[in-house]
Amino acid sequence: MTYPKIPLAQTVIQLCKAKNIKHIIISPGSRNAPLTIGFTNDTFFKCYSIVDERSAAFFALGIAQQLQEPTAVLCTSGSALLNYYPAVAEAFYSNIPLVILSADRPKHLIGIGDGQTINQKNVFENHILFSANLKLDLKDEKNIPEHEELPIFKNLEDKFERLLGLQKNIQTHNEENINTAINLAVLKKGPVHINIPLDEPLYETVEALSVSPKTIAINVKSDNIEDYVLQSCFEDWNSASKKMILVGVNSPNQIEKKWIDELAEDDSVIVLTETTSNLHHPSFFSSIDQLIAPLSDEEKQELQPDILVTFGGLIVSKKIKQFLRKYQPEHHWHIDGKMANDTFFCLDNHIQKTPNAFFEAFLPRVTHYVKSNYKAIWTTVKQSRLKKHKTYLEQIPFSDFKVFSRILKSIPDQYILQSGNSSAIRYTQLFKINKTLEVYCNRGTSGIDGSTSTAIGCAVANKKPTLFITGDLSFLYDSNALWNNYIPKNFKIIIVNNQGGGIFRILPGHKNTENFDTYFETNHQLTAEHLCNMYGFKYESISDEVSLKSALKSFYLEDDQPKLLEVFTPKQINDDVLLNYFDFIS
Amino acid sequence: MTYPKIPLAQTVIQLCKAKNIKHIIISPGSRNAPLTIGFTNDTFFKCYSIVDERSAAFFALGIAQQLQEPTAVLCTSGSALLNYYPAVAEAFYSNIPLVILSADRPKHLIGIGDGQTINQKNVFENHILFSANLKLDLKDEKNIPEHEELPIFKNLEDKFERLLGLQKNIQTHNEENINTAINLAVLKKGPVHINIPLDEPLYETVEALSVSPKTIAINVKSDNIEDYVLQSCFEDWNSASKKMILVGVNSPNQIEKKWIDELAEDDSVIVLTETTSNLHHPSFFSSIDQLIAPLSDEEKQELQPDILVTFGGLIVSKKIKQFLRKYQPEHHWHIDGKMANDTFFCLDNHIQKTPNAFFEAFLPRVTHYVKSNYKAIWTTVKQSRLKKHKTYLEQIPFSDFKVFSRILKSIPDQYILQSGNSSAIRYTQLFKINKTLEVYCNRGTSGIDGSTSTAIGCAVANKKPTLFITGDLSFLYDSNALWNNYIPKNFKIIIVNNQGGGIFRILPGHKNTENFDTYFETNHQLTAEHLCNMYGFKYESISDEVSLKSALKSFYLEDDQPKLLEVFTPKQINDDVLLNYFDFIS
Repeated sequence: MTYPKIPLAQTVIQLCKAKNIKHIIISPGSRNAPLTIGFTNDTFFKCYSIVDERSAAFFALGIAQQLQEPTAVLCTSGSALLNYYPAVAEAFYSNIPLVILSADRPKHLIGIGDGQTINQKNVFENHILFSANLKLDLKDEKNIPEHEELPIFKNLEDKFERLLGLQKNIQTHNEENINTAINLAVLKKGPVHINIPLDEPLYETVEALSVSPKTIAINVKSDNIEDYVLQSCFEDWNSASKKMILVGVNSPNQIEKKWIDELAEDDSVIVLTETTSNLHHPSFFSSIDQLIAPLSDEEKQELQPDILVTFGGLIVSKKIKQFLRKYQPEHHWHIDGKMANDTFFCLDNHIQKTPNAFFEAFLPRVTHYVKSNYKAIWTTVKQSRLKKHKTYLEQIPFSDFKVFSRILKSIPDQYILQSGNSSAIRYTQLFKINKTLEVYCNRGTSGIDGSTSTAIGCAVANKKPTLFITGDLSFLYDSNALWNNYIPKNFKIIIVNNQGGGIFRILPGHKNTENFDTYFETNHQLTAEHLCNMYGFKYESISDEVSLKSALKSFYLEDDQPKLLEVFTPKQINDDVLLNYFDFIS
Repeated sequence: MTYPKIPLAQTVIQLCKAKNIKHIIISPGSRNAPLTIGFTNDTFFKCYSIVDERSAAFFALGIAQQLQEPTAVLCTSGSALLNYYPAVAEAFYSNIPLVILSADRPKHLIGIGDGQTINQKNVFENHILFSANLKLDLKDEKNIPEHEELPIFKNLEDKFERLLGLQKNIQTHNEENINTAINLAVLKKGPVHINIPLDEPLYETVEALSVSPKTIAINVKSDNIEDYVLQSCFEDWNSASKKMILVGVNSPNQIEKKWIDELAEDDSVIVLTETTSNLHHPSFFSSIDQLIAPLSDEEKQELQPDILVTFGGLIVSKKIKQFLRKYQPEHHWHIDGKMANDTFFCLDNHIQKTPNAFFEAFLPRVTHYVKSNYKAIWTTVKQSRLKKHKTYLEQIPFSDFKVFSRILKSIPDQYILQSGNSSAIRYTQLFKINKTLEVYCNRGTSGIDGSTSTAIGCAVANKKPTLFITGDLSFLYDSNALWNNYIPKNFKIIIVNNQGGGIFRILPGHKNTENFDTYFETNHQLTAEHLCNMYGFKYESISDEVSLKSALKSFYLEDDQPKLLEVFTPKQINDDVLLNYFDFIS
């Protein structure tokens, strides 16, 4: 087998292998050559070459999101690394294990005016679980660390011994730091940065490894739950007749079915599920905005929970946030092994367990259901909303609202749905989603900067077919996502193109002025057609309901290339249709 | 006039105006709405709307590079800001004044799980002159800073007085920090970050300003030079018979002609100019690699200078770096008001003045020229190289080398030449450049991530026509640069498309393996044609010498849209032609 000659490069690669990091997304460069050579010559790794580091990191994020295992990106020194930052922040807030491997120059060649050299140490400080700043291998006395003093040696052997000792220290430091970084990425689920100084010559290879780095196992704490934590929970739970469970971003099949069923049976419990929660039960409440937005103050008071239990990641619905911040529950528990956001300014219990572990310890010991009409009332409201929702849909013209309804209904079973941010996910939240679908959206930072790349990473990592629904600005922003040789044939994109940032028309700004069109909506006449021709996507566009229906019929059929359907909607009426909706269903 | 209602937004805008920041590049968002409304409603400002923040910041960099005045970018909260980072680092190392304005959420809404919310404070820490973390305006007692305690007031007036006092402190803090940031951007030439927390409502406007922020003037130090600094310089200078002046990135017309002429007359002085130095004299030595690369060890010893004087920004030529690191001068002076890189590990004098100020104080007092044949010897070598260069050109086939020669010769007088990084600038350095041209290249980080956007910013800011020459990977990387409504009709791009990272073929890697093609060269078959159709560029492509000649004839003619010429070169022979060149001219 072929290995890079540099021991540090071998160490990084061997530890990635030992930690079972299989997917390596490589951006081209020379400083990272030892690592590129090593990863690509070992068939254990599945390597990908993606030039634009911004897209490469979101692609890796999409893979890691699916596998729930660390995925690595590798780049050369210099500004390359900075292009990873948007995806690093997304991974940080979305709890996705992402391992950033950056080649760097040796310390003595930084800050002296060489090309592609920046200050890489701790560069992601604000949004990283751990930064491993590795040390350069000791080749000879020229690069002895500054703080180490070298005595005058009596003979060459003494000197050799001393150098060997120093290199051993460096090797130990590096092994420990790499282990710590990868272990944290797994344990705390998030991004870590490993900065790897490499000196020339960079392209030399050897046929046998010169190092065998130590693997430090992950120290997993038991998921048992202390009794005193539970005790106060029981008291509050049993005396509350209005309990609300609100579920944010959550991977599919994460919560055991028996707990879902048990929660569904309790009349004092309503479970509000966001589309990204991937949690379904006929008696749960999806489409939160549909339920909440039209409420009067009195109704809101009636809905105000005694206890709010949340789990999962960030919440999309602004309306539920506004509601719960105003009508705060007496208690807010958040169940999460890692962290708890005080989203409603009334968090009083962070249960540091997985939801399953908590439910396992908690639910079987809840001996009786509290008598309550809490769920019944809200089920009535929900049914009324759903009826009006249906009526409204029948009477509205072709618009974003109608288009999302049609598209979401058209998706075949067992698809993965990746949603863009901004309008795309907000519209999606208003409709009932086929429960065989898995839904994802980059809600960590809610950016429009990498959704397409993430969706493609997902499509590569998961055998199920992936559909990505996006707005036009988000799609154009991440157009380099299509510059990717690994896009599966069954990958599909639908762009709902309202010729700009349609979401701004719903906000309270001053519409229909030149300033609004240019600086808020950023009006444009671009389409995805040329990009499809460039990158080998089959392209179709439509701009009315009849064509949409017919296009959706053939859209999901098997094909020999990925497909993109662009749906043009009338930007002048989209906002009215949406705003009137909330009046209508009340 | 229309102003945003929020005092802090007014303060930022008024201070930008007072400091004469005219160009504001705005990316769409809601949190930054007060600033967008304010900037776009004041005709003092020239506003631009660019969606992709990565491209927006490089575009701003191109404007600031031309004007040598601070240019501002404005974005919303969240990951938007992180996309500025590659341009921030480039500005940092290229000494370009760039003012980053980021809207942020109020502190109490950060870290609680809201969308588009990250930890923006000091996020560019490693590559920024100053981070101004502004404080939220005090609206009522709800957002009193944590450390301020509010006593129990006897009456409402007392309370009002106290709140007024607190708001005054906040206003003073903010004014001082904004002044400091912008003053530093001007004085030290580099990027600064102003983070601006804004609370809802964001879209309210007023007809009159409620604040009149204080402008703090820039404190410019005198450019006089102390005598003791000069004294030791004279002694060394007068006793040295081999003086080398090496000039890196330098704006056109920066050095006074009389000093150029005086340096050119001294037989003991050779002036080596990089293409990006924009410094010309018939007796100077441009094309440094051409001169240095073929030297034997003996010749190198002969060329070793006693004194090396450098000024300007980063050096492109790797060969001169290798040479001077091995054959170090006795003295290395670097002339720069801001900083000095120890590029050759022998810097012993950082003269903290502008080159003009130093030459003004120094050269008139150099009373006699030292007798020397230093320049004469190297002029002979240069002439021999130029002759062989010409012969070589006549005999080589169509290739990158030949194409660059033809293109560079074809550029009309008074053009601005923007060069991409990697191969593009390295080839350009091998040829004599028309001295009426102005040449720029992002050498701060030497990244391929924003060269097109920078070139377009330059084309917008300068009345002269701009030609951008780039490689294919760099062009594709920054393809969003073309998503820009401000591109002048006379803007022109030439892509030398060698179907991948041709530069890697010149490096010592293992060529012509599948790994090499995929992960180093990143071979592809893409062209710019579709992007040109999408973004309204006139497109032409050629792949042989005769067509190139004829295409270049019409390429510079006036047109009603920007043009792009794509030149396909044979990747299998490009590296041989270049490597053989250095043998041939020796």
